[in-house]
Amino acid sequence: MTFSSTLRQSQEQSHSLLCIGLDSDLKKIPKHLLGAANPILEFNKRIVDATKDLVCAYKLNLAFYEALGETGWRTVKETLAAIPPDIITIGDAKRGDIGNTAEMYAKGLFEDFRFDAATVNAYMGFDSVEPFIKDEGHGAFILTLTSNPGAKDFEYLKIEEKPLYEHVIAKVKKWNVKKNCGLVIGATRPKELQRVRKLVPDMPLLIPGVGAQGGDLTAAVRYGCDKNGEMALINSSRGIIYASGGEDFADSARKAALTLRDRMNSVREKYF
Amino acid sequence: MTFSSTLRQSQEQSHSLLCIGLDSDLKKIPKHLLGAANPILEFNKRIVDATKDLVCAYKLNLAFYEALGETGWRTVKETLAAIPPDIITIGDAKRGDIGNTAEMYAKGLFEDFRFDAATVNAYMGFDSVEPFIKDEGHGAFILTLTSNPGAKDFEYLKIEEKPLYEHVIAKVKKWNVKKNCGLVIGATRPKELQRVRKLVPDMPLLIPGVGAQGGDLTAAVRYGCDKNGEMALINSSRGIIYASGGEDFADSARKAALTLRDRMNSVREKYF
Repeated sequence: MTFSSTLRQSQEQSHSLLCIGLDSDLKKIPKHLLGAANPILEFNKRIVDATKDLVCAYKLNLAFYEALGETGWRTVKETLAAIPPDIITIGDAKRGDIGNTAEMYAKGLFEDFRFDAATVNAYMGFDSVEPFIKDEGHGAFILTLTSNPGAKDFEYLKIEEKPLYEHVIAKVKKWNVKKNCGLVIGATRPKELQRVRKLVPDMPLLIPGVGAQGGDLTAAVRYGCDKNGEMALINSSRGIIYASGGEDFADSARKAALTLRDRMNSVREKYF
Repeated sequence: MTFSSTLRQSQEQSHSLLCIGLDSDLKKIPKHLLGAANPILEFNKRIVDATKDLVCAYKLNLAFYEALGETGWRTVKETLAAIPPDIITIGDAKRGDIGNTAEMYAKGLFEDFRFDAATVNAYMGFDSVEPFIKDEGHGAFILTLTSNPGAKDFEYLKIEEKPLYEHVIAKVKKWNVKKNCGLVIGATRPKELQRVRKLVPDMPLLIPGVGAQGGDLTAAVRYGCDKNGEMALINSSRGIIYASGGEDFADSARKAALTLRDRMNSVREKYF
């Protein structure tokens, strides 16, 4: 089954577009967890347990796990083991390197960690992306138009009337022979998102930036979905996992996730 | 002291432009090491011990260490501990993410691992690079014109008569207020290297691709150096560390490194 079909299935089963970003940081998790053998793992398991019926995907940004040093690797592995198999897992690694090295990164993310998908930086071109898309069952979300202020530095540069990120899209469309490519488009760019969806009617879009970064949720759903109201993966990290810093953190995360999922679903009901 | 000055000092002390890439792979290291408690660490220590008077820098591509799973983190740490402090260490991570996440990556590379410098992918713009250059003592080599075939996909796209990689250079020049930015330019691009050196007369250039990738060593030295015949960091990985697959691997690596260093120095004597 192609990654694209797996994602569609996961969204239909969960009736949700929500992806929760487990950007778990020792400085931000509730203090009472710091006595646990592995506080981040404990935190992640509790969050997953409280939210797993509300999401189609979890995304782990590897920066947060690398920062844990030696225990980081095991924390990723054990967090993934706690996620039910029908939920998509995304290794948000933003890797990109020459072919033989990209191969090592893809192997680490897909075979060792067993993520379903990864985020990839395509600046270095096809051979840096190819190892991530050679197996149809694994997906690659290519950085296209990101949610951060720095997006203006290069992503919007105009080449023959079209911004660089649209050139990235044109290449990714060509690379997508196995139906396992996706794009990362920030929720802080609603106008551009609308145009991107027209350029790639069926492709999965990973849309971060609706929480702490201030992106527009309604626009993310309305413009990010395909014609069936699917294929937009809308990520929230800090807004959900740190909804409360107290002992009720998991309940609060569930409430925040539920509210977000329901808001997305009402936008879907209205427009699709 | 700025990273740029530290690098110059390291090149003058070692009388070498050579950077050895420790892209150490369990599948490629000599078989007789596989019985060691940590074969990659053993391999790296022996290579460092055999070559440390011949280089100005060592570069560790993190893909190879992530592939080791749980022991990878410790292997990086202990490899770095075996490198004399006056030799520059580069974490070849090619990271790039939104500001708060890039901050985590920079912390991991500079504070936890204690690399002197890192490679950075600037597709996402300034806030993805900023955490790597906020301390003048640590350097960031920004991916500019890479050695791989995929470089043609985006890096050469023309924007107002100039290829994308020259727009990257223009931004990096602005960001370089603390004299700690460098550029990655593949040795497979000698003509472009010559032009890049004119654009950034003093900036450190990390130049991979002279070994297995077939880049031109003479051109890398002649066009990559500044006017004093310095500030080009010429990297070779596979051509040195796998010079022999037998028990003599460290001696063979030393011979390969010596030959390369001496060839570079004769080019320097001729042109500078």
